[in-house]
Amino acid sequence: MKTLSVNLGDRSYPIFIHNDLLGNADLIKPYITGEQVLIVSNETVAPLYLDKVLAMTADFQQKTLILPDGEQYKTLQICERIFDSLLEQHFNRTATLIALGGGVIGDITGFAAACYQRGVNFIQIPTTLLAQVDSSVGGKTGVNHPLGKNMIGAFYQPRCVIADTHTLQTLDDRQLSAGIAEVIKYGLIRDAEFFSWLENNMDALLRRDNDTLAYAIERSCQNKADVVAADEREGGQRALLNLGHTFGHAIETGAGYGTWLHGEAVGCGMYMAADLSCRLGWITAEQLARIRKLLVAARLPVDAPAELTTQQFLDLMAVDKKVLAGKLRLVLLKDIGQSLVTEAFDHQQLQALLDEMPRIDSASLAS
Amino acid sequence: MKTLSVNLGDRSYPIFIHNDLLGNADLIKPYITGEQVLIVSNETVAPLYLDKVLAMTADFQQKTLILPDGEQYKTLQICERIFDSLLEQHFNRTATLIALGGGVIGDITGFAAACYQRGVNFIQIPTTLLAQVDSSVGGKTGVNHPLGKNMIGAFYQPRCVIADTHTLQTLDDRQLSAGIAEVIKYGLIRDAEFFSWLENNMDALLRRDNDTLAYAIERSCQNKADVVAADEREGGQRALLNLGHTFGHAIETGAGYGTWLHGEAVGCGMYMAADLSCRLGWITAEQLARIRKLLVAARLPVDAPAELTTQQFLDLMAVDKKVLAGKLRLVLLKDIGQSLVTEAFDHQQLQALLDEMPRIDSASLAS
Repeated sequence: MKTLSVNLGDRSYPIFIHNDLLGNADLIKPYITGEQVLIVSNETVAPLYLDKVLAMTADFQQKTLILPDGEQYKTLQICERIFDSLLEQHFNRTATLIALGGGVIGDITGFAAACYQRGVNFIQIPTTLLAQVDSSVGGKTGVNHPLGKNMIGAFYQPRCVIADTHTLQTLDDRQLSAGIAEVIKYGLIRDAEFFSWLENNMDALLRRDNDTLAYAIERSCQNKADVVAADEREGGQRALLNLGHTFGHAIETGAGYGTWLHGEAVGCGMYMAADLSCRLGWITAEQLARIRKLLVAARLPVDAPAELTTQQFLDLMAVDKKVLAGKLRLVLLKDIGQSLVTEAFDHQQLQALLDEMPRIDSASLAS
Repeated sequence: MKTLSVNLGDRSYPIFIHNDLLGNADLIKPYITGEQVLIVSNETVAPLYLDKVLAMTADFQQKTLILPDGEQYKTLQICERIFDSLLEQHFNRTATLIALGGGVIGDITGFAAACYQRGVNFIQIPTTLLAQVDSSVGGKTGVNHPLGKNMIGAFYQPRCVIADTHTLQTLDDRQLSAGIAEVIKYGLIRDAEFFSWLENNMDALLRRDNDTLAYAIERSCQNKADVVAADEREGGQRALLNLGHTFGHAIETGAGYGTWLHGEAVGCGMYMAADLSCRLGWITAEQLARIRKLLVAARLPVDAPAELTTQQFLDLMAVDKKVLAGKLRLVLLKDIGQSLVTEAFDHQQLQALLDEMPRIDSASLAS
């Protein structure tokens, strides 16, 4: 078992990575406070893994709440169902919430834990690659608003994260590729060596080889943990983790939450950021081609949704959390493995990118 | 002008207390970040003071949001209207939210500031005595749930608090008395000298003498600031601030939010806590009589609402945030000026108190 530590002073916590962690009561027990446990999961994951998590927490008063599956349910209204459940069952301030599922379940459960009685204990058991390499590190929790992704939320750290690679065997292919998008991101923004490793190991990742998955998760989490430890509340460096996300959030919101998976939108968004960086002369056409090749190998879309015109992209990007004093800021590339956040780019090149970017029918993603 | 400092490391902030602060742009300016300001107020306060706050913030992009007035509107649904307003008007992460009103406006606006884009700048301009002596110190923000008061919230500190005693001249009598309940609380839990001062100055307070009000506010805030600085997240000592609140929250929830003012419910709740302390032999009948006399002088109710049976009280108190491992904990008195949080009391005495407590028709409060 790999154990990675996220160093945040008195909010530090471990991430356990291995292929057979679910069901291990000794592993989770030291991280449960109080006597009451609410396991929050969704309709897809619960039938597969809820029994194992119930077995892990059999020594406690257990309740479960099963939510519908999908980004479109990451709302304040669904979050209220968690509050209802906690209050109807008299959960007190020493209770523990366990999120069993992907990024949506982790984000919404973490936000509920942050707000319930102004903060209760929280454990994450991410069951998608995306949640294991992204949502499990950094404490970003929250829900979407019809006008923007993740606009309502809190920084709130889990007590521990249990990433069982075995759960990735049941992930559907689209979800796996969506997770790989965030893995590629760490290579692009700060780890050129990892990017090369991914070029050489994409087949093994897609085959879901356990050791390859474990290495990719560990290296991704380590990259993110390094960034977050230096900048917990996103004053500077942490914004680099948003490579592809300004474009990606516009795609998700514009196409309708749940139509594009978050990782698919980020994959396309990273390609758009790379393309813009190339148009600005900051990376070469050869570097752009390498990036495109790796994204395509990961079976990620590199064309934008037909639903979004240039103007709709610009409008949706204007509500991004990185916008400062009305100025759009983007994460762009100077090299593979080197990135920056900047508002100092030629906006005509952005306009040209959005005008010329090929479009695809969003429905084709599901096929 | 009195300036009191709440010492919380890098989240420290000043409270300004004086009788002519509204309209003073120089006072507020250093505490506004960014260029966008949203002033949140309610239908009662806005007609009286919104113009002055608009004048104070004239150098910024100003928007206003006027909410309905009353505890029954301190809900997640009303909080969403703040999020809608912020997003519709493209408020970014550097924006400042200003709460202009009583405790409800302060709590809900503070919670919205804590959650919007995971945290934006927040300034409080409390216009009720209760908000000036209670909600303005300590960073407790949040909303109610149908099953319990303040069950959803965050610890989030304002950048500064502007307490203008002039605003108390327009407060209705019930609201003034409700504020005095929290003032009396500081005397009861930790400041016997202040309790005596209140016995001697209740008439001047009720006459709304500016200097008397300013002194009561300053001493109350100082007491609360001392407690909060020692225990920001309510691990121990801070729970003493909840004297009367376990009973009080049950009254508010049971009678229907808005029927009893928060301070009225706390006033009655403090009397119930004192009565129970007397039944337990922890304070004398003479001390109980002094407490009753001061509460009655402040025109606060000391009888419970007829709507609540003993069993309803017990059920509602069971969801209190101080409940630990299913055990009800109460703040009780050992003396005037000396209090403790304990679960070690004879529950038959609590039952007897609830059975024997005189009841009044809640409608009589409004007359």
